[in-house]
Amino acid sequence: MSADRIETLRISEIFGPTIQGEGVLIGEPTVFVRTGGCDYRCSWCDSLHAVDSQYRHTWQKMTPAEIWDEVQHLSGNRPLTVSLSGGNPAIQNLGPVISMGQAAGYRFACETQGSIPAPWFGMLDTLVLSPKPPSSGERVVWERFDDCVKAAGPHTQVVMKIVIFDEEDFAFARAAAASYPELPLYLQPGNPEVDPALPVDLDQAAKRLEWLVDLTIAAKWFRPRVLPQLHVMIWGNKRGV
Amino acid sequence: MSADRIETLRISEIFGPTIQGEGVLIGEPTVFVRTGGCDYRCSWCDSLHAVDSQYRHTWQKMTPAEIWDEVQHLSGNRPLTVSLSGGNPAIQNLGPVISMGQAAGYRFACETQGSIPAPWFGMLDTLVLSPKPPSSGERVVWERFDDCVKAAGPHTQVVMKIVIFDEEDFAFARAAAASYPELPLYLQPGNPEVDPALPVDLDQAAKRLEWLVDLTIAAKWFRPRVLPQLHVMIWGNKRGV
Repeated sequence: MSADRIETLRISEIFGPTIQGEGVLIGEPTVFVRTGGCDYRCSWCDSLHAVDSQYRHTWQKMTPAEIWDEVQHLSGNRPLTVSLSGGNPAIQNLGPVISMGQAAGYRFACETQGSIPAPWFGMLDTLVLSPKPPSSGERVVWERFDDCVKAAGPHTQVVMKIVIFDEEDFAFARAAAASYPELPLYLQPGNPEVDPALPVDLDQAAKRLEWLVDLTIAAKWFRPRVLPQLHVMIWGNKRGV
Repeated sequence: MSADRIETLRISEIFGPTIQGEGVLIGEPTVFVRTGGCDYRCSWCDSLHAVDSQYRHTWQKMTPAEIWDEVQHLSGNRPLTVSLSGGNPAIQNLGPVISMGQAAGYRFACETQGSIPAPWFGMLDTLVLSPKPPSSGERVVWERFDDCVKAAGPHTQVVMKIVIFDEEDFAFARAAAASYPELPLYLQPGNPEVDPALPVDLDQAAKRLEWLVDLTIAAKWFRPRVLPQLHVMIWGNKRGV
């Protein structure tokens, strides 16, 4: 690549401000930058439009400056938290976007499965690593996950978030947690209702949360926080909120 | 009081482990110690059974050792977070309970309106101060609130949580937040459905959260986290969960 060619990124969508619906930053006003492309194909993926290359024609090629302009426009130039998600955002170079944003006082979080360590992880305020449990059909390569933890900087808060669909996933979470005793841990029930065209059954969503709370408490396992996906409870699977 | 008389506390209920449903510790496995008695009478109080003296006959007189025994029993002697709530727990001397628990590795949080500074606030891990907005019918005495903030210790995380029923409450929250720029801030929609005999309408609860998210985002106010009451979404107003 010549020095004067500006690198573009594949972006599935940029939206917000809304609140972060899950995990350590739950409830936090956030603009989301969702990149296109993923090295995983989780069986229950709720963001296939940002994962599968059949949707590639919907992804825009944007320069870091164009991405940053859009975030500033959406947030009315008032600093907030920007969440880099996907797909797997670690595939692409988000460093220049983070640099522009941090210069303006914005904070950055990233959500990734922990399969690819990106050098810009060290620039983040918050790195959420979500190793995928057996129900996903994917298999975690823990050496790569370790590399992701190590890529965090001295000021990066690293946390682990695990989605739980069944008791096998729960056993996976217990083992994963034991291997990383230093990481704050967040569990959330899996959402099998991922069709954006269908409404989410709130009673079922509440029952899934109750199931996971009961499982965790019955195990007398008091380390994880157990949280729902608030965006699903408010907006179902509608995109852009 | 003679030196050999053991002080008892008025306790409305001790229950758990369950998850903390709201605020900074949302999702955290917790045993709740709910004290009896309150200096406030909020119009929409969801815990009148621990507030109004007409329920006084349901409160037990317990020594700190009896309270601590019950927490240990419920948690199977495994350390977790204990939330001291009420009523207003600041009325009574919870210091001995906290001492016993901390010696065993438990963490302590307290939820109070911030009307009475207790000397034991300095022993807490987390102090949640909830100044009551206009819809409560109560009026905040900010000098007392200041005293509560000052009573926190060097290792106590102090946060502010404000319940919002209407736009007047929202304006109150904005002003209160501006006076305490150093305190992490949590907003939650008010719950008008407080009859434990009636089921909670989940759609309405989700709509109240959406309303508060919209209000906060429309104001481009990106400081507070906006969170629901998870326990209401899972268990309605049932007691003991």
